[in-house]
Amino acid sequence: MLSLARRLVKKAALRSVHRRNEAWQVANNRGTHLPPALWGLTVNGAGHLCADGCDFRELARTYGTPLHVVNSDHLRANYDTFLGAFRREYPQVEIGYSYKTNPVPGVLQTLHGFGACAEVISHYELWLALQLGVAPEMVIFNGPAKTDAAVELAVSRGIRIINVDGLPEIDRIAAVAARYGRRQGVGVRVTTSVGWSSQFGVPISDGTALAAFERLAQIEQLNPQGIHIHIGTGIRNVAVYEQAISEVLAFAETLRQRLNIDLRYLDFGGGFGVPTVQNYSEWDNRLKANGYPARAIDTGACPPIERYAAMLGQQMRGYIGRNPGTNPSVVLEPGRAITSRAQYLLLEVLNLKPGKQGMQYAIMNGGKNLAMPLGYEQHELFPADRMHDPLASGRYDIAGPLCYPEDILFKARKLPELRPGDLLAIMDAGAYFISNQQNFSNPRPAVVRIDGGTPRLIREREQFEDMVRLDQPS
Amino acid sequence: MLSLARRLVKKAALRSVHRRNEAWQVANNRGTHLPPALWGLTVNGAGHLCADGCDFRELARTYGTPLHVVNSDHLRANYDTFLGAFRREYPQVEIGYSYKTNPVPGVLQTLHGFGACAEVISHYELWLALQLGVAPEMVIFNGPAKTDAAVELAVSRGIRIINVDGLPEIDRIAAVAARYGRRQGVGVRVTTSVGWSSQFGVPISDGTALAAFERLAQIEQLNPQGIHIHIGTGIRNVAVYEQAISEVLAFAETLRQRLNIDLRYLDFGGGFGVPTVQNYSEWDNRLKANGYPARAIDTGACPPIERYAAMLGQQMRGYIGRNPGTNPSVVLEPGRAITSRAQYLLLEVLNLKPGKQGMQYAIMNGGKNLAMPLGYEQHELFPADRMHDPLASGRYDIAGPLCYPEDILFKARKLPELRPGDLLAIMDAGAYFISNQQNFSNPRPAVVRIDGGTPRLIREREQFEDMVRLDQPS
Repeated sequence: MLSLARRLVKKAALRSVHRRNEAWQVANNRGTHLPPALWGLTVNGAGHLCADGCDFRELARTYGTPLHVVNSDHLRANYDTFLGAFRREYPQVEIGYSYKTNPVPGVLQTLHGFGACAEVISHYELWLALQLGVAPEMVIFNGPAKTDAAVELAVSRGIRIINVDGLPEIDRIAAVAARYGRRQGVGVRVTTSVGWSSQFGVPISDGTALAAFERLAQIEQLNPQGIHIHIGTGIRNVAVYEQAISEVLAFAETLRQRLNIDLRYLDFGGGFGVPTVQNYSEWDNRLKANGYPARAIDTGACPPIERYAAMLGQQMRGYIGRNPGTNPSVVLEPGRAITSRAQYLLLEVLNLKPGKQGMQYAIMNGGKNLAMPLGYEQHELFPADRMHDPLASGRYDIAGPLCYPEDILFKARKLPELRPGDLLAIMDAGAYFISNQQNFSNPRPAVVRIDGGTPRLIREREQFEDMVRLDQPS
Repeated sequence: MLSLARRLVKKAALRSVHRRNEAWQVANNRGTHLPPALWGLTVNGAGHLCADGCDFRELARTYGTPLHVVNSDHLRANYDTFLGAFRREYPQVEIGYSYKTNPVPGVLQTLHGFGACAEVISHYELWLALQLGVAPEMVIFNGPAKTDAAVELAVSRGIRIINVDGLPEIDRIAAVAARYGRRQGVGVRVTTSVGWSSQFGVPISDGTALAAFERLAQIEQLNPQGIHIHIGTGIRNVAVYEQAISEVLAFAETLRQRLNIDLRYLDFGGGFGVPTVQNYSEWDNRLKANGYPARAIDTGACPPIERYAAMLGQQMRGYIGRNPGTNPSVVLEPGRAITSRAQYLLLEVLNLKPGKQGMQYAIMNGGKNLAMPLGYEQHELFPADRMHDPLASGRYDIAGPLCYPEDILFKARKLPELRPGDLLAIMDAGAYFISNQQNFSNPRPAVVRIDGGTPRLIREREQFEDMVRLDQPS
């Protein structure tokens, strides 16, 4: 009896959230949550979504779907906004773009053109940065899984810094540096009382971080220049960053006093959330499991980057005030904050099927194979070629082609009446979409970059032949 | 106070399960749950794991790691066991191997050599089957996302059957068949009162399935020959299959009586679980989150295939008894049941790091990028080159190289004292490992197939250059 009552209360609560969402969505009459302008997009007379004047329908016709579209102007704007905000507060800020967030060479190249350093976490990413012509002085090598071959490449090319993750790496790097007769710049990945730790870094709190620097100070071939943290991903909390940074700065002072090491690089990592992507809460997941849409994206819940910048400025001024003569560079390693919102994934409706309670399934030509983050993040979705059409009375579950029931990208979305061939555009496809891509039964999409209104193919669509190029059956 | 009490009770419960696991593991003194022989593996004098006489250490040295190893003999044994069990009960059983489960051409080719049909769900998979020389009569095309191009390829080559998923596909296929002047064999994917439905199939219960066959019967170009279900994945429950099959057979009788359609193919899909892979329960996840190992794999919880076969035989004898003159083929679409246990993933320890409470992290050269299913499935893990070594006192969390905290493959495993360069072998890598692979910061591994004791490279290791072959940056 109690359990029935509980279930009724729960159901009523679910309904009430659903109704609030509903009212909100009907108010703007698009079934969407946010205006396309947030992504630098416009809608043309035909009701088609456009990026920098390029009609998504035209792009789909020319390049086929699924298709990633990157907007150079928007990349530039994101980059300038991010870096500008921090540099106004502390001039010696540098960006090391996180390669794993968006590994497309035509995106990385654009960011390097703006002046970004490369933040790499694997032999492949290190190779790619050097292949793209990034100066070794602009390469930062992180991560707990550095192979011998990767360390050798890093040292032989003299990259700026290798952030060691755990004490055993120190002697491995020293041995390679000795072999090449080089003095290699190194930093130490540390952990603070907040943010990720687990397999990453060495704690400041238990003395391991200090022990690492003591060891570094004894080794001729290694030049201890930096300290590195990376506290999480999609963070929407200035206070957490503030706590981590204050602990790192206190530790940097300890290093000055105890070991006479004056760090040149303070690397505070990345993980900055964006206003247009929202992690699904447990509540959202319950809503979705019950056939309701998840909560609308609350852009106000994400602190503007200026607040992080103001906090950093204040901390750095304090640090420099307490440590006259020091003038470190601050390195930040954003990924999502730069590329997420400048990229869109276009999918085409293949099939429509009735679902339960007036719902319909729209089966798309891409699913979790291309858009893994939609499993845990709420993104905006636009009917790219039907932006002026009225909403259908029912709702849509947007499914992929992968033949398992969890291949659902969006639940219970209001959209115009869909037909096969219609185009849906998923926003914020510029972070962790392509790094998480799979070849699950399907080839991987092309990527088009729009440069000042002109589309340019920066990654060809994978052909079936490409998928078996390395195979030698029979 | 209550909440504290509750937490204490929970913690005690967790500890008790942990202790039971522990006792069990110490008893067999390997920290592993199951004997290598279950995967057709042996251990040589050096304490190295071997498949069909091939030493895993040697394979790793020759081909590098990460490395997939497939055992042809074990594929053959799995195939024969599966098909034999069903054919003893009902001679007209055929296997359509599920391409999405393991898309490696050198594996598929082997299975086709045994006589398997191809079960495909995408244009790519259809192309691949034909490319591998599979006779069109041996190809079954399923799924809710058939593109026009795929339907065209299927019809133009005259594949055995297209199982339509939803009514709109019927007219699309008919139009293509008319264009080619062919009569295309088709079936209908239906849903029953048990198993998957959501975006898949049309329900028997509400008359949609019957309506689909009525429509098919009116179209000259289409030859309604089959019915198709696919009720799930990793199923360990004969009764669920039995229920689904009995509903399908009752419906097939309706088709005979009402529409005079005598189906030639009864396709009962796949989804058969294997004894050596166990889905993590909520309880397992709680154990893991609290630093305990998940429950050991309970091989007895998975019904032997003979029980499914006996059930199917009984059902089919009943059906044929009630419908004299009919003699349909039963098609089964196993994936996991054939390939899961015949394939192993070899990873190398790159780095070791202390964790909390005496735990250690072993950072491997592959993580979720190569072994996505380990996020929701318990698999066996062997220290491939230390099988004779005593267990270390502590436990290991086995992490990947991807720089996010969820990149953990195994929690709190007992293993010998590990050193960098040591080899771990993950069992049951033959289902959904390669289809779910990602290029997350790393290239994809080579695949070696062992044929009668001789290793043969069937897929080359991806080179860095391969990862940017389709890119045109700048």
